Amino acid sequence: MTSPDPDLSNDPGHAVIVGVGGRVGIGAAVARRFAAEGLQVHVVGRTQAKLDEVVADIRDSGGRARAIVNRLGSPEEIAALFAALPAGAALEAVVHNAAFKNVPRRFLGTPPQFIEDNWRVSGIAGLLVGQAALQRMQAQGRGTLIVTGATASLRGRPAFAAFASAKAALRSWTLALAREAEPLGLHVAHVVVDGVVAGDRVKETGYGLGKLWIFSKGEDGALLPEQIAENYWQLHRQPRGAWTREMDLRPYKEKF
Amino acid sequence: MTSPDPDLSNDPGHAVIVGVGGRVGIGAAVARRFAAEGLQVHVVGRTQAKLDEVVADIRDSGGRARAIVNRLGSPEEIAALFAALPAGAALEAVVHNAAFKNVPRRFLGTPPQFIEDNWRVSGIAGLLVGQAALQRMQAQGRGTLIVTGATASLRGRPAFAAFASAKAALRSWTLALAREAEPLGLHVAHVVVDGVVAGDRVKETGYGLGKLWIFSKGEDGALLPEQIAENYWQLHRQPRGAWTREMDLRPYKEKF
Amino acid sequence: MTSPDPDLSNDPGHAVIVGVGGRVGIGAAVARRFAAEGLQVHVVGRTQAKLDEVVADIRDSGGRARAIVNRLGSPEEIAALFAALPAGAALEAVVHNAAFKNVPRRFLGTPPQFIEDNWRVSGIAGLLVGQAALQRMQAQGRGTLIVTGATASLRGRPAFAAFASAKAALRSWTLALAREAEPLGLHVAHVVVDGVVAGDRVKETGYGLGKLWIFSKGEDGALLPEQIAENYWQLHRQPRGAWTREMDLRPYKEKF
Amino acid sequence: MTSPDPDLSNDPGHAVIVGVGGRVGIGAAVARRFAAEGLQVHVVGRTQAKLDEVVADIRDSGGRARAIVNRLGSPEEIAALFAALPAGAALEAVVHNAAFKNVPRRFLGTPPQFIEDNWRVSGIAGLLVGQAALQRMQAQGRGTLIVTGATASLRGRPAFAAFASAKAALRSWTLALAREAEPLGLHVAHVVVDGVVAGDRVKETGYGLGKLWIFSKGEDGALLPEQIAENYWQLHRQPRGAWTREMDLRPYKEKF
Repeated sequence: MTSPDPDLSNDPGHAVIVGVGGRVGIGAAVARRFAAEGLQVHVVGRTQAKLDEVVADIRDSGGRARAIVNRLGSPEEIAALFAALPAGAALEAVVHNAAFKNVPRRFLGTPPQFIEDNWRVSGIAGLLVGQAALQRMQAQGRGTLIVTGATASLRGRPAFAAFASAKAALRSWTLALAREAEPLGLHVAHVVVDGVVAGDRVKETGYGLGKLWIFSKGEDGALLPEQIAENYWQLHRQPRGAWTREMDLRPYKEKF
Repeated sequence: MTSPDPDLSNDPGHAVIVGVGGRVGIGAAVARRFAAEGLQVHVVGRTQAKLDEVVADIRDSGGRARAIVNRLGSPEEIAALFAALPAGAALEAVVHNAAFKNVPRRFLGTPPQFIEDNWRVSGIAGLLVGQAALQRMQAQGRGTLIVTGATASLRGRPAFAAFASAKAALRSWTLALAREAEPLGLHVAHVVVDGVVAGDRVKETGYGLGKLWIFSKGEDGALLPEQIAENYWQLHRQPRGAWTREMDLRPYKEKF
Repeated sequence: MTSPDPDLSNDPGHAVIVGVGGRVGIGAAVARRFAAEGLQVHVVGRTQAKLDEVVADIRDSGGRARAIVNRLGSPEEIAALFAALPAGAALEAVVHNAAFKNVPRRFLGTPPQFIEDNWRVSGIAGLLVGQAALQRMQAQGRGTLIVTGATASLRGRPAFAAFASAKAALRSWTLALAREAEPLGLHVAHVVVDGVVAGDRVKETGYGLGKLWIFSKGEDGALLPEQIAENYWQLHRQPRGAWTREMDLRPYKEKF
Repeated sequence: MTSPDPDLSNDPGHAVIVGVGGRVGIGAAVARRFAAEGLQVHVVGRTQAKLDEVVADIRDSGGRARAIVNRLGSPEEIAALFAALPAGAALEAVVHNAAFKNVPRRFLGTPPQFIEDNWRVSGIAGLLVGQAALQRMQAQGRGTLIVTGATASLRGRPAFAAFASAKAALRSWTLALAREAEPLGLHVAHVVVDGVVAGDRVKETGYGLGKLWIFSKGEDGALLPEQIAENYWQLHRQPRGAWTREMDLRPYKEKF
C-alpha cells in the first residue's frame, strides 16, 4: 500500500496531505510547499502511480515525502492512515483535500448511488479525517487542520446539489470542530476555494436547456495551485493570537 | 407494515408527513392540520403504535389518515413509500420532519457509527425523500415539499457537530432542489425551527464542565407544534406569485 | 400635509404603511390588505396625489384609510409620523417599505450625494421608523413591525453597492431589534423580496460591457404585490408560539 | 493638520492607514508592520498627539511615516486625504480601520444622534475611503484595500444595533466593491476581527438584567494587534492567482 519507507526518525514534524491526485492539483502543490519547509510529508490518494510522481518531485527537491494509498473507504481505513505515522512523531498539519468527482446531475435524475458516493467521499471521509487528525494532535496541544471547501460549501447550484450537500456538511462539521479544538491549541481552518483551479479540466453540463459548456478560462480566470498552497502554509504558521477559521481564495478575474 | 387501508378513491389530494413520532410533536400536528383541510394524510414513522394514535386522532375528527411504518433505511425503502400511494392520486404536499436523535457528543469521542447514523437519518433520508417527492409531483406540475430544519442547519455547536453536519447537508440540498423545482411549478421550502419545541423532552449534557442541564422552559420559551403546523399550512397554500424558500420559526421568549 | 381626517374614534386598531407610491406597488397592496381586515390604515409616502388614490381605493371598498405625506427626512419628521396617531390608539402593525430609487452606478463613479441619499432613505429612515414603531408599541405589549428587504440586503452586486449597503444596514438593525423586541411581545420580521415586483418598471444598466437591459419578464417571472401583501398579513397574524423573524418571497419562475 | 513633511520623493510606495488611535491598537500595529517593509506610511486619525507617538515609533525603527489628522467628517475631507499624497506616488495599500466608539445602548433608548454618528464614522466614512482609495489605485492597475470588520459586521447583538448596522453596511459595500475592483487588478479584503483586541479597554453594560460586565480576559482570550497586522501584511502580498476577499481573525481561547 505504501512506497518504500524513508528514514522518519528524529524528524522535525509531519504533515499529512489527504486527497492528492496528479502533479497539477492543489494536493500536490500543498505537499511540495509543506515539504519545502522541512516537514515530512505523507501524500495520500487513490492512485499509487500519481502519488509516486508527487513524492519523486519532492525528493528531487531535497524534501522528504512518502506515498500512502488510501481510499478513505471506511472509518477503519481512515484510522489506519494515522496509525501508520511513526509512534511519537509530531503531527504538525493535516490538509484534507479529497472530494468526489464533481459531475453535474439534474436532481430528478441523480441516482441514489451518486448521492451516496458524494456523501462518502466529499463528506463523511472528511469528517473522519478531521476527527482523527485532532484526536492525534490533542496530546501535543498544537497542530493545524486545513479543510478544502468550495463555492458549493456555501450554496448549491441545482446541477451540483449532491456535491454541495456533502461540502456543506463538511463545512458545518469543520467549523463546529474548530470551536471545540481552538481552546485546546489546535487550529482548524476551512478554505473556500471559490473558482476554477488551473490544471483541472472542468466540464459542466448545463441542464434545463441541455447545454454543454467547457470552461476554458485563461490563467487570469483560474486559481493557481501554488498560490493556494502558499496560503495554506500561511494559515499553518499563523500564531494563535490571531487565527483564521475561514477564508476564501479566488482568482482575480473570476467573472461575476 | 401499514394500518388497514381506508378508501382512497376519488380523493381531493394526498399529503405525506414523514417523521411522525408521538401525538405531541411537529409531525403529528402537521398531519392533523393538513387532514383538517380535507387532504388524505399518510403519516410515516418508525413505530406503529405511535402512528396509530395519530391516525386515530385524525379519524376521530373526521379526517382521513393512514399509518405507514417506514424506517427510511435505504433508497428502496424510501421509494416504496411513494410507490404505496394510490396510482394517479394527486400528491399535494410532502413534509419531511425526520431526524436522528439529537444527543450531545464531544467531537473527539463521537463514534463513527454515531456520525453515520446521523447522516443516514437526518441527512440522506431527507435528500431521498425530497427527490422522490418532487419526481412524483413533476408530472402534476404542482405540489409542495416542506423540509424541517433546525438552528443547527445554519451553524453547528461543538457538541452537536454530527447532527449539524447532516442538517446543513439537508438544507443545502433542499435549497438547491428549490431552484430547480420552482420553475416546474413545485414549491420547496426549508423551515428553520429555531428553538425548543414544547412537548419534546430536551436533555442536554454540557461538556467541558461536565454539566447537566435539563431544559424546562415554560410555554413562552418553547415553540408550539400547532403553530408550527399552521405555518406549514400557510406555506403550502402560498400562491406561486410569492413563494417562500426559507423561513424561521422561533418562540417569542427565546433567550438571546 | 394630510388628507381630511376620517373618524378614528373607538377604532379596532391602526396600521401604518410607510413607503406607499402608486396603486401598483407593495405599499399600496399591503395597505389594502390590512384595511380589508378592519384596521385603520395610515398610508405614508412622498406624493399626496398618489396616496390619495390609494386611500380612495380603500374607502371605496369600505375600509378606513388616511394619507400622510412624510419624506422621512429627519428624526423629527419621523417622530411626527407616530405623534400624529390618535392618542391611545392601538398601533397593531407598522410596515416599512420605503427605499431610495435603485439605480445602477459603477462604484468609481458613484457621487457621495448618491451614497448619502441611499443611506438616508433606504437606511436611516428605516432604522428610525422601526425604533419609533416599537417605542410606541412597547406600552401595549403587542404589535408587529415588518420591514421590506431585498436581495441586496444579503449581498451587493457591484452596480448597486450603495443601495445594497443601506439595505444591509437596515437588515442588521431590524434583526437586532427583533431580538430585543420579541421578549417584550413585539413581533419584528424582515422580508427579503427576492426578485422583480410586477408593476415596477425595472431598467438596469449593465456595466463592464456597457449594456442596457430592460427587464420585461412576464407575470410568471415577477412577484405579485397582492401575494406579497397576503404574506405580510399572515406574518402579522402569526401567534407568538411560532414567530418568523426572516423569510424570503420570490416569483416561481425567477431565473437562476 | 499634518506633522512636518518627510522626504517623499523617489519612494518605493505608500500606504495609508486610516483609523489610528494610540500605540496599542490595530491601526498602529498595521502602520508599523507596513513601514517595516519599506512602505511610506501615512497614519490617519483624530488626535495629533497620538499619531505623533506612532510616527515617532516608526521613525525610531528606521521607517518612514507621516501623521495626518483627519476626522473623515465629509466627502471633501476624505478626498483631501488622498489629494495630500505626493503626485505620482504609488499607493500600494489602504487600510480602513476607523469606527465610532462602540457603546451598548438599548434600541428604545438609542438617540438618533448616536445612530447618525455611528453611520457617519463606522459606515459612510469607510465607504468613501474605500471608493477614494480604489479611484486612486485604478490608474496603477494594482493596490490593496483592507477593511477592518467585526463580529457585528455579520450579525447584531441588541445592545449594539447601531454599531452593527453601520458595520454591516460597510461589509456589504466592501464585498460589492471587491467584485468590481478585482478584475481591474485591485485587491479588496474585508477582515472580520472576531473578538476582543488586547489593549482595548472593553466595558459592556448588560441590559435586561441591568448587569455590568467588565471584560478582563487574559492574553489568551484576546487578539494581539501585532498578529492582526501580520495577517494584513500577508493579505497585501497575496499574489493575484489566489486572492482572499474575506477572512476572520479570532483569539484561540475565545469562549463559545
